[in-house]
Amino acid sequence: MEEKLRELKELLREVYDLECIIMLLNWDQSTYMPPGGAEARARQMAVMERLAHEKMVQPRMGRLLEALVPYGESLPYDSDEAGLIRAAQRKFEKANRVPSAFMGELISHQAKTYQVWTEARPANDFAKVAPLLEKTLEMSRQLADYFPGYVHIADPLIDFEDEGMKASTIRSLFSELREQLVPLVKAVTEQDPVEDQVLKQHFPEEKQWQFGLDVIRQLGYDFKRGRQDKTHHPFMTKFSLGDVRITTRVKENELGEALFSTIHEAGHAMYEQGIHPEYEGTPLAQGASSGIHESQSRLWENLVGRSREFWEYFYPKLQAVFPDQLNPVSLDSFYRAINKVEPSLIRTDADELTYNLHVMIRFDLELALLEGKLAVKDLPEAWRERYRTDLGIAPPDDRDGVLQDVHWYVATIGGVFQGYTLGNILSAQFYDAARNAHPEIPAEMRQGNFYTLHHWLKENVYRHGSKYTPEELVQKATGQSLSIEPYVRYLKTKFGQLYPW
Amino acid sequence: MEEKLRELKELLREVYDLECIIMLLNWDQSTYMPPGGAEARARQMAVMERLAHEKMVQPRMGRLLEALVPYGESLPYDSDEAGLIRAAQRKFEKANRVPSAFMGELISHQAKTYQVWTEARPANDFAKVAPLLEKTLEMSRQLADYFPGYVHIADPLIDFEDEGMKASTIRSLFSELREQLVPLVKAVTEQDPVEDQVLKQHFPEEKQWQFGLDVIRQLGYDFKRGRQDKTHHPFMTKFSLGDVRITTRVKENELGEALFSTIHEAGHAMYEQGIHPEYEGTPLAQGASSGIHESQSRLWENLVGRSREFWEYFYPKLQAVFPDQLNPVSLDSFYRAINKVEPSLIRTDADELTYNLHVMIRFDLELALLEGKLAVKDLPEAWRERYRTDLGIAPPDDRDGVLQDVHWYVATIGGVFQGYTLGNILSAQFYDAARNAHPEIPAEMRQGNFYTLHHWLKENVYRHGSKYTPEELVQKATGQSLSIEPYVRYLKTKFGQLYPW
Repeated sequence: MEEKLRELKELLREVYDLECIIMLLNWDQSTYMPPGGAEARARQMAVMERLAHEKMVQPRMGRLLEALVPYGESLPYDSDEAGLIRAAQRKFEKANRVPSAFMGELISHQAKTYQVWTEARPANDFAKVAPLLEKTLEMSRQLADYFPGYVHIADPLIDFEDEGMKASTIRSLFSELREQLVPLVKAVTEQDPVEDQVLKQHFPEEKQWQFGLDVIRQLGYDFKRGRQDKTHHPFMTKFSLGDVRITTRVKENELGEALFSTIHEAGHAMYEQGIHPEYEGTPLAQGASSGIHESQSRLWENLVGRSREFWEYFYPKLQAVFPDQLNPVSLDSFYRAINKVEPSLIRTDADELTYNLHVMIRFDLELALLEGKLAVKDLPEAWRERYRTDLGIAPPDDRDGVLQDVHWYVATIGGVFQGYTLGNILSAQFYDAARNAHPEIPAEMRQGNFYTLHHWLKENVYRHGSKYTPEELVQKATGQSLSIEPYVRYLKTKFGQLYPW
Repeated sequence: MEEKLRELKELLREVYDLECIIMLLNWDQSTYMPPGGAEARARQMAVMERLAHEKMVQPRMGRLLEALVPYGESLPYDSDEAGLIRAAQRKFEKANRVPSAFMGELISHQAKTYQVWTEARPANDFAKVAPLLEKTLEMSRQLADYFPGYVHIADPLIDFEDEGMKASTIRSLFSELREQLVPLVKAVTEQDPVEDQVLKQHFPEEKQWQFGLDVIRQLGYDFKRGRQDKTHHPFMTKFSLGDVRITTRVKENELGEALFSTIHEAGHAMYEQGIHPEYEGTPLAQGASSGIHESQSRLWENLVGRSREFWEYFYPKLQAVFPDQLNPVSLDSFYRAINKVEPSLIRTDADELTYNLHVMIRFDLELALLEGKLAVKDLPEAWRERYRTDLGIAPPDDRDGVLQDVHWYVATIGGVFQGYTLGNILSAQFYDAARNAHPEIPAEMRQGNFYTLHHWLKENVYRHGSKYTPEELVQKATGQSLSIEPYVRYLKTKFGQLYPW
């Protein structure tokens, strides 16, 4: 069995390396690639995706797993070997249902769609990308159909990203959360609007960039194993556990834009950087799910980065960088400005209270598209309609409507949005558990010390990578299963103080 | 046959894509990769090298070529199909002799050696990298031995880079050239040294960078299909015909450093950008040989970029960028400074007259190592000895001695240096042919117009890619076989004017 396990690891490492190379092709496409490279890049990504998939489903992999699965079950559940065999088997089963040729075609279609979207969005031209989106929908359905036996057609797509979750579970979770959120939003938006013009002064790019780097270095992001570059759409990506990069964009008249997205992506990256180094080259060397991943980006972005404690330490430093703009602004005004609640059009700019309403709209539209109840051509209007109903405002054009998020134009329809809200819910649950274990965390943050929090997350979440299912991990780290209670309590406390109702 | 040719192209395109991805892995390693990425990167490059090699030698490729080679021979020699089949057959034969596992091992060894070299060079620590270099030598011999029947063990290694060339041919060519160069160098260095302190003032990096970009844009480098980034060791690389990038380094107290290496790499890049777009994805979509490639970088760097005509146009613009530094300096003084002849230690900084002596030293040492007449441990001293004999100076340490060039630490020993001098020779031969066809070229350059020259090179050299052997291409473009006569005449004329003897 030792020998078989060694060989399994070798085959898995090759798949891992090929997958990491795809990430590099994608990173380069989004950061430095000149326009002339686009056509070949789509081809290169498709070739690599097909090769990685072929390697994952090679017959030898299947035979090794067949022999190793019973062995894995005989080991202690918590042993790394048992976890590795479980994760490899799950990955193999999923990959094995989908033909390599289909995966190659999908990725090539996605690369093409992404290119067209980059032109369609600024041109506010949904029609340009709609035929491609039709095909995306068709291929998303096809992908789901490789997993027969589902209750809802979105279930297999959701399971790719958030294992163990189903459309029905998420629907009821979201409806429960919605009931709590709507009155909160109402209570806040009935009050006088908060003044946030202070964030919209001129803040030179270079200084914003440097401040963001200083902040995440202090939070614990390791620059020997990462770096930050510029893109249109911020993201985190990984080429190995020793090379976990983030990207961001800077707006000179929006102080929050670069800073909070830098912290957000650094949250994702610290998760990957914190995975046990011995998992490198295996399916364990990645976050447990979209939702768990997002819990870490949102925990650092919001529960830390938009907290009073954080800014007690960092605000004087920020004032020193931008004295003309910020010396006249008190910490309290600044804190209120970065936590301003206001129904808005753009998900990534949304405040903590309305953010999940944006996600729910997308989730419902995804399901409707997959169910065949909504046609792609009717999507822009359905989008506007839901914004009117849920947020009381509607986008004047598709640029800030249905074209705003890259997801549908670079992934499948279905499975790609629910993780954002799962992440928000879990961010509070994990933070609660960390503070229960270490009540000194908020006081330490006031001193610019994030070590205890970072260390707790590393030990209880990060290091495990994909060794446990999301459900197991939540249970293990917090002592309970996923619950909206800590999140709702957090929102009520924080926004109750900011907007006393 | 149509169907077979279509299938051949498909298989070749996949190999091409994998090879281009290796180039991206390498580019990223040299530009942006954080140190933590090094270990996985070496592994990723080895995996890809092995996969590309496996795809090249797959049995189906062999069977298709077997059927297509006679068909190719029945086509007109100049047809693209015939050229493609010839090039594919040559590539297949070479690849087929080397086991995929060996290629993977070689590339992985080279990546490791490169990492150690990046530390050994600044630390002046040859001993640190010597054991790896021993292995490189051993693997270089092994590689040559996959091609039995050679006269000299370096022949197969030379043939990889400069097809059709042999150690004996190059030896006699170099000795012929040497006879011409040595008296020239002597005549020049007996005169009073030229003043070049003007190039060693402070020139801010950002302005140098921008000026370099402006120059190569005007020469014809297409930024929609390329870009420039910073590295330690400048190079050109290609991820497709639509994405041909260059890198450079800037020294603020050395005006020539960035500028001439930018022009040099742009020369390589314009060659690749000029290849017939229909060759994309085939073995035709690359330069014909190291020597031909270097002829283009040196043509633009030296015959254009260090010419009086070029600077009659560009010098006033350079003065406008650096008025404090250059307004007091006349065009004549500047022209003399950038063409200063002086025996020196660093090949890449060498003037046009002594440059080839550096190459010949390396070429002879390579042969001695391969022949077993020189041991790796004795290489540093052998290096110093040859510099004393040939250039009259010796490096005080290995940093500027045997550790100075990256080549032996990232490629094989053997085959990697002769292309530089072949390139110098050919640069003059091609330039001569272009001027014979278009005597107006120098006058146009004085106006900042490089179109005629660039167009002639595109039509007569670039567009053909690897369709012809180097020998055929030289014959076709210049009407004669490789000859040192135009090069020697060029050097005598130019330096005879600068240093009247």
